[in-house]
Amino acid sequence: MTSSAPVSRLYRATVEYDGTELLGFQIQAQGRTVQGELERVLQKVTGRLTRVIGSGRTDAGVHARGQVIAFRSAWRHTAADLQRALNALLPPDIAVLDLLPAPDDFHPRFSARERWYRYQLGTWPGHSPLRCRYAWEVGPGLDIEAMKQAAEALVGTYDFAAFGQPPQGDNTVRQVISAQWSEQPPYLVFDIRANAFLRRMVRTIVGTLVEVGQGRRSAGDVARLRDSRDRSQAAPPAPPQGLILMAVSYPDYD
Amino acid sequence: MTSSAPVSRLYRATVEYDGTELLGFQIQAQGRTVQGELERVLQKVTGRLTRVIGSGRTDAGVHARGQVIAFRSAWRHTAADLQRALNALLPPDIAVLDLLPAPDDFHPRFSARERWYRYQLGTWPGHSPLRCRYAWEVGPGLDIEAMKQAAEALVGTYDFAAFGQPPQGDNTVRQVISAQWSEQPPYLVFDIRANAFLRRMVRTIVGTLVEVGQGRRSAGDVARLRDSRDRSQAAPPAPPQGLILMAVSYPDYD
Repeated sequence: MTSSAPVSRLYRATVEYDGTELLGFQIQAQGRTVQGELERVLQKVTGRLTRVIGSGRTDAGVHARGQVIAFRSAWRHTAADLQRALNALLPPDIAVLDLLPAPDDFHPRFSARERWYRYQLGTWPGHSPLRCRYAWEVGPGLDIEAMKQAAEALVGTYDFAAFGQPPQGDNTVRQVISAQWSEQPPYLVFDIRANAFLRRMVRTIVGTLVEVGQGRRSAGDVARLRDSRDRSQAAPPAPPQGLILMAVSYPDYD
Repeated sequence: MTSSAPVSRLYRATVEYDGTELLGFQIQAQGRTVQGELERVLQKVTGRLTRVIGSGRTDAGVHARGQVIAFRSAWRHTAADLQRALNALLPPDIAVLDLLPAPDDFHPRFSARERWYRYQLGTWPGHSPLRCRYAWEVGPGLDIEAMKQAAEALVGTYDFAAFGQPPQGDNTVRQVISAQWSEQPPYLVFDIRANAFLRRMVRTIVGTLVEVGQGRRSAGDVARLRDSRDRSQAAPPAPPQGLILMAVSYPDYD
């Protein structure tokens, strides 16, 4: 038997999703996930089983404006055609924002140099049905200056074992490039950039900084907590619906 | 038999809701509505059948930041207690933002002097899962200046029969106080205030102004359409998910 399959090549795409009704990025035996939906639709469009790799896994309920994925395909038409075909079949909570051929050595996780996550807090009193979908409703009265001061202790290259688990291996050293609070009505927004993150790291940091804002920890505690490398001393992770993977940077490929 | 019922009094409340999974304000035989959910929860909390009146009906899928309702109740505790009890039992897409005793002659519809609606357009290319819930995704390339100019023809006291049906009776004269487009990233926002609106009036106006922005109508057409009083000449109503009832004003009661 001879194969008539065309040569396959690598594609890279930016994907946006509303994580509310998704069980996270990674494919599961049961339930809707980003990877599962993308692979299902790719198989429908291309006729072949296609494995999707992401820049990193987002947990159930976490959103993305700029998740980056890659896959190999022997698609015979243009990348724009493939993007249109995928978007026509994807459910409304997932969209492919752009799709391009990529060099063969591009890898969405290993080629990434920087990840930007945003966490949105709701500081209004009570519950807001129109704003709760993309925020953690912690209520008013936070000491924002203390939260800003505490965030400074996170910038730099440290062992962040107190704030999360490594996705694989034992290395818990990460370089946080910036960590800033800003008021962006109706939200109080935390933007954090790092070369990479540990599992649950952003949410554990936000949970801890909110405890600072509530006066349950001092701002100085955060540096001590960081140096302790003891995860049991950190706050529980903030809930997933406030977290958005905003962008992943690939300076060597852009 | 003697009645031991305490004296009932009138309450007024501001209600926020995400209309996505609601069949509109007005109670229906089947399905979840704002009025239906409020009456169900009021009966649970007060033990009595309680009729809720709103400032106006919003259609299925339309949201509200500031719908105003009123109801009579013989509640024996404070209004703040009643608000807490209602919010504890309401589903997450409906919340009571404030609740106060009101004078006996207060009526959420007849006492209202001004309604403010907002319509949000999405002018990004393609589909955005994180922004589509509260916007009509019309895409880029609108002529915003033409849309602003066309909106001016709507300000004033006119017979708006071309843009909607009266909720009851034949009077289709309304006073539009302001009608303005503004860029409020990520949305292109239309704010319109009037003493009252006809059914589907805001959505029909927005549908028509978007046709102006797309070059399918001239800005001058809108004044001619208004004067025609002919509803068949207007555009189809814009979809419900972009519309938010922002506030209702009661200057005689505030």
